Amino acid sequence: MQGAVLHAPGDVRLDTRPDPQIVEPTDAIIKLAASCVCGSDLWPYRGIETVNGPAPMGHEYVGIVEEIGSDVHTLTPGQFVVGSFFASDNTCEICQAGYQSRCIHAELIGAIGTQAEYARIPLADGTLVATPEVPDDKYVPSLLAASDVLGTGWFAAVAAEAGPGKTVAVVGDGAVGLLGVLAARELGAERIIAFSRHEDRQNLARHFGATDIVTERGDAGVAHIKDMTNGYGAHSVIEAVGTQESMMQAIRSTRAGGHVGYVGVSHDVTLPGDELFFSGVHLHGGRAPVRRFLPDLIDRILTGAIDPGHVFDLDLPLADVAEGYKAMDERRAIKALLRP
Amino acid sequence: MQGAVLHAPGDVRLDTRPDPQIVEPTDAIIKLAASCVCGSDLWPYRGIETVNGPAPMGHEYVGIVEEIGSDVHTLTPGQFVVGSFFASDNTCEICQAGYQSRCIHAELIGAIGTQAEYARIPLADGTLVATPEVPDDKYVPSLLAASDVLGTGWFAAVAAEAGPGKTVAVVGDGAVGLLGVLAARELGAERIIAFSRHEDRQNLARHFGATDIVTERGDAGVAHIKDMTNGYGAHSVIEAVGTQESMMQAIRSTRAGGHVGYVGVSHDVTLPGDELFFSGVHLHGGRAPVRRFLPDLIDRILTGAIDPGHVFDLDLPLADVAEGYKAMDERRAIKALLRP
Repeated sequence: MQGAVLHAPGDVRLDTRPDPQIVEPTDAIIKLAASCVCGSDLWPYRGIETVNGPAPMGHEYVGIVEEIGSDVHTLTPGQFVVGSFFASDNTCEICQAGYQSRCIHAELIGAIGTQAEYARIPLADGTLVATPEVPDDKYVPSLLAASDVLGTGWFAAVAAEAGPGKTVAVVGDGAVGLLGVLAARELGAERIIAFSRHEDRQNLARHFGATDIVTERGDAGVAHIKDMTNGYGAHSVIEAVGTQESMMQAIRSTRAGGHVGYVGVSHDVTLPGDELFFSGVHLHGGRAPVRRFLPDLIDRILTGAIDPGHVFDLDLPLADVAEGYKAMDERRAIKALLRP
Repeated sequence: MQGAVLHAPGDVRLDTRPDPQIVEPTDAIIKLAASCVCGSDLWPYRGIETVNGPAPMGHEYVGIVEEIGSDVHTLTPGQFVVGSFFASDNTCEICQAGYQSRCIHAELIGAIGTQAEYARIPLADGTLVATPEVPDDKYVPSLLAASDVLGTGWFAAVAAEAGPGKTVAVVGDGAVGLLGVLAARELGAERIIAFSRHEDRQNLARHFGATDIVTERGDAGVAHIKDMTNGYGAHSVIEAVGTQESMMQAIRSTRAGGHVGYVGVSHDVTLPGDELFFSGVHLHGGRAPVRRFLPDLIDRILTGAIDPGHVFDLDLPLADVAEGYKAMDERRAIKALLRP
């Protein structure tokens, strides 16, 4: 089969890779309907994370079940499924508490590579959620978004306790931050402030429910949020970047007793204990347990309540995967969808 | 009047200080029934925090209202009252959300000094909670504990979401940690594990509800907790020390999706962002909004449901304040009560 492989920083190609096979009886093989390029794929692409030899790429996916192992009981070939970036048994205590991304049997889908024609999904019963029927093609981008960026933004909004009566600020105007805006709206937030200095992203933030845009960042951004909230700060702040500046901007924008939901993968961040102590905020985040939210998100998408697929502003055949990475790296695209 | 003054590290004395006067119309003057020495008083006493000239000491207090300002409406002279270490208006948005220690008009009681015969309490209507009648002397130690160490341990247990079915671990066997054990029991925790290597504190922990004692600390302590919880870690961990080691021990003892409630005042702590991210824990704490819990705690004490006053293992006249500090500094006493 054909699949994307990163050979070195800046060098991603479509290669012929071995057809995936059932390895464990709990595996399923899916035929990808769509995949995409994640912001986190850009870390190795840019050489900020080390690339150790050719690596299959991609961890976001929707597709049709092609084959199941002998110990898969809830899925049948032909079903359309959505999964997320960690395989999980969905039965251990951690999964049952809603933290499937930290399942004691968790396996990283990124090591498998879903920017490809087919993929082997471990722990298929726990990992994959089937749609009631094979959906119309128009829903594919939104269902694919549920697989990671929507699920991650949603988790951030839940971790930040976005809800009725709340003012929510969102640090980061990438796909996850933008869908954090959408999640905050769906969760009933009263006011949603997006930090953004790019007009296209500001427009998308407004489309998803942002009521206000703040273009400053760092201390000036924090001061602006304080001004907008009688000096108190926001009730809820979503952090979707992962840098020192963005984390401190998120914490400082939050009122005492408020909640920071952070999902930007942490890069060289150290949090000062004393400032955190005196801030009095709640801090929760990490790798999003997307599986927790998938049934609800799929339902919202198929009933037309939400349209997260709008984050894909580039739609390419899988053969053009290199252009997908390049466009995102150069910030010409917010997020690139890839069709095998 | 007589009041404790810290002149230099190790040098605390009972001095003649000016009688407190009503300054703002929202002030009340109270006649102290009891005060005590806090673990945090030991930081300047030990010279770890700078001592800038003679400083009045003490921020824990119960007493009788002596006089009220013209704008105090809920209190009358003669009432017995309990307050906490921050004065708060109890009406701003932050107070109403239960974070009175971060009230926008918060004033630090420590600057006033309650290891004394009398004290001026700002924002008296918001700060002080009167008991239904002047209580029997036997309740005074427990009501005094509510003023800080119980209220702080209680907040830590609430922040850690201790409750039915939960395994709670407690890092720190000082008065706050021990009362965190009591709080976890009252909140219905199923299993309460106290980290302690001192027999007297282990005994008090068991008296307050600890079901297990772990004597190891650091990585060995974490490994022990994992062993006791099928490898998952505790659901809830209370941190009541404030050092780098204790914070990391708390975070690492918590399962993914679990809660750390931290109240040890942070000293030279830096949290690694990546480890925090991948831990998936909830982190909440800081200076405890004791005022939120006072009505409930007073009720539990006066009905005999809880006996937090047991943390006072040294009961001295105010005149012996120097011995109170010395005994706590040398860890001969867990907590010293002072009677003017």
